[in-house]
Amino acid sequence: MAMPHYTAIVTLLAVALYFFFATRVATGRGTFGVKHPATTGNLDFERIFRAHVNTLEWMPTFLIPLWLCALYLSDIGAAALGLVWIAGRIVYFIGYKQAVEKRLPGFFIQGTACLLLFIGAAVGVVMRLAGG
Amino acid sequence: MAMPHYTAIVTLLAVALYFFFATRVATGRGTFGVKHPATTGNLDFERIFRAHVNTLEWMPTFLIPLWLCALYLSDIGAAALGLVWIAGRIVYFIGYKQAVEKRLPGFFIQGTACLLLFIGAAVGVVMRLAGG
Amino acid sequence: MAMPHYTAIVTLLAVALYFFFATRVATGRGTFGVKHPATTGNLDFERIFRAHVNTLEWMPTFLIPLWLCALYLSDIGAAALGLVWIAGRIVYFIGYKQAVEKRLPGFFIQGTACLLLFIGAAVGVVMRLAGG
Repeated sequence: MAMPHYTAIVTLLAVALYFFFATRVATGRGTFGVKHPATTGNLDFERIFRAHVNTLEWMPTFLIPLWLCALYLSDIGAAALGLVWIAGRIVYFIGYKQAVEKRLPGFFIQGTACLLLFIGAAVGVVMRLAGG
Repeated sequence: MAMPHYTAIVTLLAVALYFFFATRVATGRGTFGVKHPATTGNLDFERIFRAHVNTLEWMPTFLIPLWLCALYLSDIGAAALGLVWIAGRIVYFIGYKQAVEKRLPGFFIQGTACLLLFIGAAVGVVMRLAGG
Repeated sequence: MAMPHYTAIVTLLAVALYFFFATRVATGRGTFGVKHPATTGNLDFERIFRAHVNTLEWMPTFLIPLWLCALYLSDIGAAALGLVWIAGRIVYFIGYKQAVEKRLPGFFIQGTACLLLFIGAAVGVVMRLAGG
């Protein structure tokens, strides 16, 4: 099986974005006065913290379908949906930072990308098994 | 190295289950009145929330041995233990939802699956290195 | 692409360490009287808990660059930086357990390892794409 180069690049971009979110949590601790090891105590901080953690929570749901879709079906297709996921995560983070309800548009964008990647991965594996 | 198709399918099943747990957390927020971004405040909600997060916490401990065992030793064997892990996680979730103590049987089932996968992966890598 | 055996072994070591941290959280619940499903209530426990969760939070930032660096550039190089990450995580955990400020040296060691792995992975992918 060939290595999916474009998906590898998009995965590194996703890691870079995820790391950037982590730095926003660190900065938020100073801005809103939430000292380690606490993760609660100020709602503005908690929304930034949860936006970061939610990205972590979705990592298995994103990365596994992404790579199985890339390996079994299409590198370019998986990479393109990976970019949609990244865009959705940026919209989600900016929205959640402002208000709880504003997290939803970005949430559905990234969720849709994961769903399509999951379908692509499932179709790809089944086609491979069926085709021998 | 051949792609482990059966392990790929079991991994997608694990992702689907993990996603299902996330929907239970979302539903639990409504049922028990815990608003975003809070994750505490009602013990019934907290047990569901923690059952989901614990599944995330175990993802590295499950997925890495699963795939290394599949690649280095046996696709079918890894996939079978992956199904045991999934079963253990279902038992764990149902139990933890009811009471703290009832999480233990499922916890030990999924932990045993991870331990066996870890041993399989370690044996597989060492055999490969020793065999050239 | 050849399977990076040394990186596979280091990854299993990282999983073993991560699992060991989880057992420290479980033990800490007894020592400091923090009952499931709570994760707060005692600062000594919370520092151990956060040291474990922070390791989870960094897993994508570590594992993805580690494996892409191993596959695209150098198995031995990635494995060596993986050992540095493990060492940094041990220093981080021991430090954070004692005091909040003492987490920093280990934090920077493991962060530097991730940064170098990320650079190695990015350079490796770009070289492969440029070289055809």
